[in-house]
Formats: sequence, structure tokens, C-alpha cells
Amino acid sequence: MVTGIGDDAAALRIPSGHEVLVTTDFTIENVHFRRGWHAPEVVGWRCLTRGLSDIAAMGGEPVAAFLSLAADRDVPQKWVDRFLRGLLALAAKHEVPLAGGDTAQSDGGIQADIVVVGSVPKGKAILRSGAKAGDSIYVTGTLGGSAFALDRLRKGERLGVERERHFRPEPRIAVGRWLRKHGIASAMIDISDGLSTDLDHICEESHVGVELQAEAVPCSASGRGKTRVTLEFALHGGEDYELLFTSPRRVPAQIEGVSVTRIGRVAASLGMRLSGAGSSRSLKAGGWEHFRRG
Amino acid sequence: MVTGIGDDAAALRIPSGHEVLVTTDFTIENVHFRRGWHAPEVVGWRCLTRGLSDIAAMGGEPVAAFLSLAADRDVPQKWVDRFLRGLLALAAKHEVPLAGGDTAQSDGGIQADIVVVGSVPKGKAILRSGAKAGDSIYVTGTLGGSAFALDRLRKGERLGVERERHFRPEPRIAVGRWLRKHGIASAMIDISDGLSTDLDHICEESHVGVELQAEAVPCSASGRGKTRVTLEFALHGGEDYELLFTSPRRVPAQIEGVSVTRIGRVAASLGMRLSGAGSSRSLKAGGWEHFRRG
Repeated sequence: MVTGIGDDAAALRIPSGHEVLVTTDFTIENVHFRRGWHAPEVVGWRCLTRGLSDIAAMGGEPVAAFLSLAADRDVPQKWVDRFLRGLLALAAKHEVPLAGGDTAQSDGGIQADIVVVGSVPKGKAILRSGAKAGDSIYVTGTLGGSAFALDRLRKGERLGVERERHFRPEPRIAVGRWLRKHGIASAMIDISDGLSTDLDHICEESHVGVELQAEAVPCSASGRGKTRVTLEFALHGGEDYELLFTSPRRVPAQIEGVSVTRIGRVAASLGMRLSGAGSSRSLKAGGWEHFRRG
Repeated sequence: MVTGIGDDAAALRIPSGHEVLVTTDFTIENVHFRRGWHAPEVVGWRCLTRGLSDIAAMGGEPVAAFLSLAADRDVPQKWVDRFLRGLLALAAKHEVPLAGGDTAQSDGGIQADIVVVGSVPKGKAILRSGAKAGDSIYVTGTLGGSAFALDRLRKGERLGVERERHFRPEPRIAVGRWLRKHGIASAMIDISDGLSTDLDHICEESHVGVELQAEAVPCSASGRGKTRVTLEFALHGGEDYELLFTSPRRVPAQIEGVSVTRIGRVAASLGMRLSGAGSSRSLKAGGWEHFRRG
């Protein structure tokens, strides 16, 4: 599927009748990771996860990845080797070749830009804009574990089971593919910025509102696995890389081995609301707003 | 040709029977440009030139560009706006939509990664690996002007006509297309790292050697336009973004309004040699080596 690696550009063959998907994501030292907190393999894995998760959210198949990596002279070659090992481990898992990229000397620190090219049958990409009033809202897996782990790293505390959620997030390629093949999802996005923020993107693009049920939101396990992160982390924490989608149909409780939870429904009236324990609050991207009795 | 802008990934339609070309190039402050030397519009223009030139060197058609841009808080929004204006001016000239990308806060300075996606009829991409002994070697335009300008900027000297060569390099998309359509070029690369370095890439990939004629190398005009840069700049200076190609056939002296010059021939024996004024020297990528009487 890939030729021309090492030439001026890589040449990719895309199945006929397919569109090409392209996504790019920056990973920057001290913004997206810290060398003191994140092992190089973890940085590489998370770097590629960001791109693969975007392809998953379109219902696409990844075709090839491209990495542009800049590092200053003080970054040991061993760090770069271990970074690549982490990235390539995830690439191998999804059978995505690293087909090219660019390396450069940086003026300071480490900057990595990951490009993932994918494909999807023409007109079948699942966009953010297709949600309709009355659709149910679903989310894969559990939420908030990654942000909870980051919070503990910030506080210098030891990590529990939330470690894997933060260090080795799994892009939901198989779930996205299943949803596209079954034509079930009316809109979809991956949760990279947090449920409230990414749900807001669907609302904006689909010109709809949503009503979430607080008790339905699946919060990630924490500590030794007997506790769960608070709703705050699940609503506003980022980097879970789960899929958030809407559907007019009933959806299985598990797809491709990943749990799927109904967390609310799409409303015709604009705005996001969160209900639970007899009250209803207005929910704002990234934070709470206007507590009101329901 | 482009949909899904603003979604998780952009969706591009590629003509059927075509391959997809992908190239990525980093542009980093204080490595590839200096804010004191290069106006923001110039940085944006040069950023996109790097990507378009790679597509030109494959004989491809640009389809869409993606920009990942990181800047620290101290970079004024006005700088970013002017950077985009320069990039979009070149994009408009070649009718390439900016179809997406990523923005991030940087930990220091400015980093831009440009991705250009292109297309080429299947199997028609012009690679670096097709040069054959006996082929002639050709170069478009003139060489060395960009490096000469950079040298003057370093020395704090005023720029002459070499200014445009450095600030507004022209990716040779039309020439690359013409060569691909006429099936004339056996191998091709763009001159981004310097003639000697990029010619060495062709030698490596094609398993051949080359014999250059010093007096044939077209050196860029300098100063008020009555002088030319020295051969040293033309041989080893980078960022000219001209096309370097080989062909078994006679090639017109001008293609799509751009001059084309025969500068030597491909040899079966490995290594690069430069002859002129009765002598022959071994030429090494990026520098001279082993002066010997021919």
C-alpha cells in the first residue's frame, strides 16, 4: 500500500471508491508531556494514539503514519530510540506503517507532529454534524482516568490502575470501523479534550443540544481498582481517546470487546444540560455553569 | 475535493487511478528562520514552498495542505496572522486549500510542520531511483541565490536581487507536471539541501555516479543583477527549490517558462566528479574532496 518511502514524498495506494482521511497532531514537551513524568515509550505511544483516534472517530481505516520530530542537541539518542519504540509498538498493533516524516534540530526541547492518513468508503465518514434530536448519546469505555492520573502526577502522588489509562490509551479503531460498517452512528468524535468539550463540538456542528444523565457517565477505575474517579474528571478530563457518538438506534452494550454506555440524549433546544439526583444543571464545555434546580 | 474540514480528520477525494503523495516538513525558529531576518509572510511562504516542492519533485499535483503550528505566548497574534497570509498567498497561487492541521502552545519559540498531500497517476511518480548511466543531468532555474542571501543576512549586509530567491522561492509544480506528462525524466529530486547533497541522493538511490561540468552550472544573479554568486554557493547552498532531474532524452531549454540547463551526465562508476578548466575533482555532498588533476 506504501511505496516511495525515502523519496521526496511517500506514495500511498488508497482502495478505489475510498476517500482519503488526513489528521495532524502536535505533541510538545512541557505542554503535552514531561520527561520526568512520561517515559519515552509512553510519549511515542500517546503521540500516535492522538492521530489514530482521529481516524477511528471518522470510522476510518488507518493507512500510514508520518512523524516529524524535532529535538535539541541535549536530547539523548537513546530517548529518541525509546520514543520510536513506543510509537512503533502501537503502529504494529494496528498494522500502520510509519511511511515517512521529517527530522530536524529543535531550538529547545522536543516537538513531534504526527500525521495519520486513513481511508473510508466515499461518503461514509462519520462526521460531527449528523446528530438529530431524539438520538441517544453513547460513549465507549470509561472516562476521567487519564486526567486523574495526570492530576496525581502533578501532585507527586503514586499512580494506581489509572496509570494505563494515561500511559497507554487505546485508539478505538475497531469500534469506529464497526459503527461505520453497521451505519449506526449519526455523529461521532473522539474524546481528546474532555467529554463536555467534545460533546459541545457535536452540538455546534449538528445545531442541537444534549441532556446528559450524571449517574450514567462511566467513570474510570482508580487507585487499586475498587474506587472510581469523580464525575468532574469524567466530564472535563481529557486524553481518554474513547469514542463519543450519537445514534437513533439501540446499540449493543459491547462492541469489539469495548463497553458502550448510553449517557443521555440529543435535544432540539440548544445547550448542554446535566441531570441527576432530581436536579438539572447547565453544563458548559470545560466547566460547570449556572446551577439550577431542575 | 476536500470535505470534513473542522472534523476529526479532513476527507479528500483523490482522482481514481491515482496514488496519494504525502510529504511533511518542519520549519523551526532559529533553525530554519530568524524573526529578525525573515518577515512573518516570508516564513509562511517558505514553509509551504518546502512541501509543494516535494510534490513537484515527484511530478505530482498538490491536493491540500495541512499546517501544525505551535507558538509560545510571547508570539504576537499579528505575527501568526502575517505568517498565515504569506502561506495562503502561495497556496492560492497553486490553488491548494489549507484543509486542516493543529495549533498548540509551544514551550518556546515557533514550530511549524507543513503537510502537503498530492496525487499522481498510479506508477507515474518520478522517483530518485531511476537514473541510468548515459542519462543527461538537468537543473531548472539558477542555483545558489538563496544561500548567498542567507550568508549576507548572517554578515548583516544588504540584499540585492538574491533577496527574492531566498524570501520567495517558487516551487516548480508546473515543470514537474510537464516532465511527468511527457515521461521524460528518469529520476528527479528538488534541490532543498544543495545541488551536491541532493545529487548524491539520486546517486545513492539509482546506484550510479555523475560527472558535472563546472562551467555549465547556472549560478544565480546577485547584487544589482550584473554579477553571479560563486560556484561554491551554487554547488552546496540549499533552499533553492529548483528541480534536479535526469533524462535519456534531449530536454527543451525552457519548460513552463522556467529555464532548464544541462549540467552533466550520469556515469556507471560510482561517485560524483566535477570537471572544468582542464581539471577534474571529486565532489562530495556538502563540500569539496580530494582535488586531483584530471
